[in-house]
Amino acid sequence: MKAEITSIGTELLLGEITDTNASYIAFQLPLLGIDLYWVTQVGDNFERMKECLERAWKRSDLTLTTGGLGPTEDDLTREAIATMLGEEPRVDPDLEQQIREFFSRRSIEMPERNIKQATLIPSAEAIPNPRGTAPGWWVERGGKLLIAMPGPPSEMQRMWEKEVSPRLRQRLGHEIILSRTLKTFGHSEGAVDEMVSPLLSATNPTLAVYAKPDGIHLRITAKAKRREEAEKMIAQREEEIRSLFEESIWGCDDETLEAVLGALLSEKGLSLATMESCTGGLLANLITDVPGSSAYFKGGMVAYTDEAKISHGVDPALIVRHGSVSPEVAEAMAEAARARLGADIGVGITGVADPEEVEGKPIGSAHIAIVDGKSKRVIRGSYPPLRPEVKRRAAYHALFELRRTLLASK
Amino acid sequence: MKAEITSIGTELLLGEITDTNASYIAFQLPLLGIDLYWVTQVGDNFERMKECLERAWKRSDLTLTTGGLGPTEDDLTREAIATMLGEEPRVDPDLEQQIREFFSRRSIEMPERNIKQATLIPSAEAIPNPRGTAPGWWVERGGKLLIAMPGPPSEMQRMWEKEVSPRLRQRLGHEIILSRTLKTFGHSEGAVDEMVSPLLSATNPTLAVYAKPDGIHLRITAKAKRREEAEKMIAQREEEIRSLFEESIWGCDDETLEAVLGALLSEKGLSLATMESCTGGLLANLITDVPGSSAYFKGGMVAYTDEAKISHGVDPALIVRHGSVSPEVAEAMAEAARARLGADIGVGITGVADPEEVEGKPIGSAHIAIVDGKSKRVIRGSYPPLRPEVKRRAAYHALFELRRTLLASK
Repeated sequence: MKAEITSIGTELLLGEITDTNASYIAFQLPLLGIDLYWVTQVGDNFERMKECLERAWKRSDLTLTTGGLGPTEDDLTREAIATMLGEEPRVDPDLEQQIREFFSRRSIEMPERNIKQATLIPSAEAIPNPRGTAPGWWVERGGKLLIAMPGPPSEMQRMWEKEVSPRLRQRLGHEIILSRTLKTFGHSEGAVDEMVSPLLSATNPTLAVYAKPDGIHLRITAKAKRREEAEKMIAQREEEIRSLFEESIWGCDDETLEAVLGALLSEKGLSLATMESCTGGLLANLITDVPGSSAYFKGGMVAYTDEAKISHGVDPALIVRHGSVSPEVAEAMAEAARARLGADIGVGITGVADPEEVEGKPIGSAHIAIVDGKSKRVIRGSYPPLRPEVKRRAAYHALFELRRTLLASK
Repeated sequence: MKAEITSIGTELLLGEITDTNASYIAFQLPLLGIDLYWVTQVGDNFERMKECLERAWKRSDLTLTTGGLGPTEDDLTREAIATMLGEEPRVDPDLEQQIREFFSRRSIEMPERNIKQATLIPSAEAIPNPRGTAPGWWVERGGKLLIAMPGPPSEMQRMWEKEVSPRLRQRLGHEIILSRTLKTFGHSEGAVDEMVSPLLSATNPTLAVYAKPDGIHLRITAKAKRREEAEKMIAQREEEIRSLFEESIWGCDDETLEAVLGALLSEKGLSLATMESCTGGLLANLITDVPGSSAYFKGGMVAYTDEAKISHGVDPALIVRHGSVSPEVAEAMAEAARARLGADIGVGITGVADPEEVEGKPIGSAHIAIVDGKSKRVIRGSYPPLRPEVKRRAAYHALFELRRTLLASK
């Protein structure tokens, strides 16, 4: 099946946003055994949009569009598809009802222009979009398929995952392509690449290395006639990789480090509290991204200044003696968080994210302390000297070390 | 001048990389007065690449390509351009010399396959690339222009900045295009669209509406012969828009809400402390994304549970009487943050982000309290019922209301 993506929106052509939707879909298509031949970006211009869609409809079996489904005058995807197919858009009463309810749940009256999001053409079925007001369109005619999805990535991805991908999979279903992503932390991309280098040239299963915010990911992809066969190939390759990386692999597929940690805490019936300096709340923010985290996360403190650290319970003498960026203060922060919030485990992070060195310590240096009343660990971190990098790496490093601590404690 | 970008590389179509080159160039073109009409991604396939280039050459005045200039067999951009134009590529002795020197400076012998990077066709001139071995091609024939640049972003951006953009500017140089983005908070995209609806059909300056995580943005773009003229057109339109939105406009261009707030706090010499429930540290995280925020941010507390709220200084009787998601508790949180950390201003946020309703209050409802020892404000929030949306909207809402409070206090 030959596929094509048409990404719609003048903001793409003005460089105001990058087309991450196209790369998201492009990454997903091989898992369905679908080959992507073209990606085209076009602005909110009716004529050019129609021309692009006509070309796509003609040369491809499957056309995927993103964007242009909003309520404004600029949103012309529905109109362009209808014109291309010579069909008339009509308001669908069920869709109208759903959109009105979406607004009334938020105690807002539906602006009248949103009515056009409730239109359909005879060849189109609506694809549900619980995250927004724009339903997608699943258009089928003469053996060709066109799927129109909304532009906001969270709406598009949910629609892909829950609606479009399962339906496409069911429809195709002859050759099975399976994929598994193993997620590591603690090695650089270059180091990971070297470790798996003999496996990178294999063609089935293939292996690819990706640098991500939460570490380096390894993606194994296998093709086979039967599911069990593909699963077996992946399992073998996974075993080889796991023996190379051991505990550096913290999760797989769509697992997040914060959710993996949350599951471990729940399983062991342990609670957590944090005190952060250089990460400025990012660690607590990640932890609370997990639904249900209130069951194990007692809370946190952001102690950006020395005064704040002291008022949160850090001994001022330690700061005077060792400096605020020191293993000793990290430990005192972890202890204070644990004691103040009555948690089983306390974490403290102190480091230099500021535009300048602190106490002669370079930007990017940090200390992460983990205490549980019986034992303590203080880990040194050293990150690229850029504020967002320091925050991000230190927060993920803390999550990774927390997981390691929990795994070690039987 | 009508322009088109062709991004070349199979890794784009596999979703292994996102096409940031296209958005980089797309953002630059309007500043030269060049209109971008299409972006196409195509793989390392000779036939499809040639077909894309033929279409671009025919319909556009300027075709910009990135990628496919490497030394491997997959790198076919030069060959595709030559075939499209019916010209013969030949090794250029000067280019060959330069590439050999590039290698010898790094004490490596040039692999023989790199020789193809030294080829040119009669209509092409080489564009220097000191960051890599692939020179670009500047192709001119029959009044049309094609510029081929390398794929690695650092090489492409350097080539754009130092070579391509100055040359294009010199060539065009008559028309100036300027742009200004006004950022609003508190109105929905549909509402903003309706408010500015009479201005949306204007062609110079144009106006466009974008929904972003920090609110709704309005971008004004003006074309003129002279800079002053374009500036005047933008200033007039900006005034009209400002009179419609008044204090809902919190910033412009590359300003962030957290930095705008930081600047206001610094200017007034005031400090801030936070206590967050449903936002789980995101507010503190945003505040500390600003370099130098340690000067005004005293710190924060994440009080996810009732116990944590109490241990951070919230009166338990208030929680019993009003529930933890209530204006009263939000205010007590703000007061406690302010008192505990000795800040001038305290902010408290409590709301429902969890997978379930809390105390019969629906997911997405929240209260934001701002106190400064003399006055208090408690604002009610209602957001889309998804955890990441609740966190994000409540945090930006708090930043926006903090700014409003500071502006009101003379």
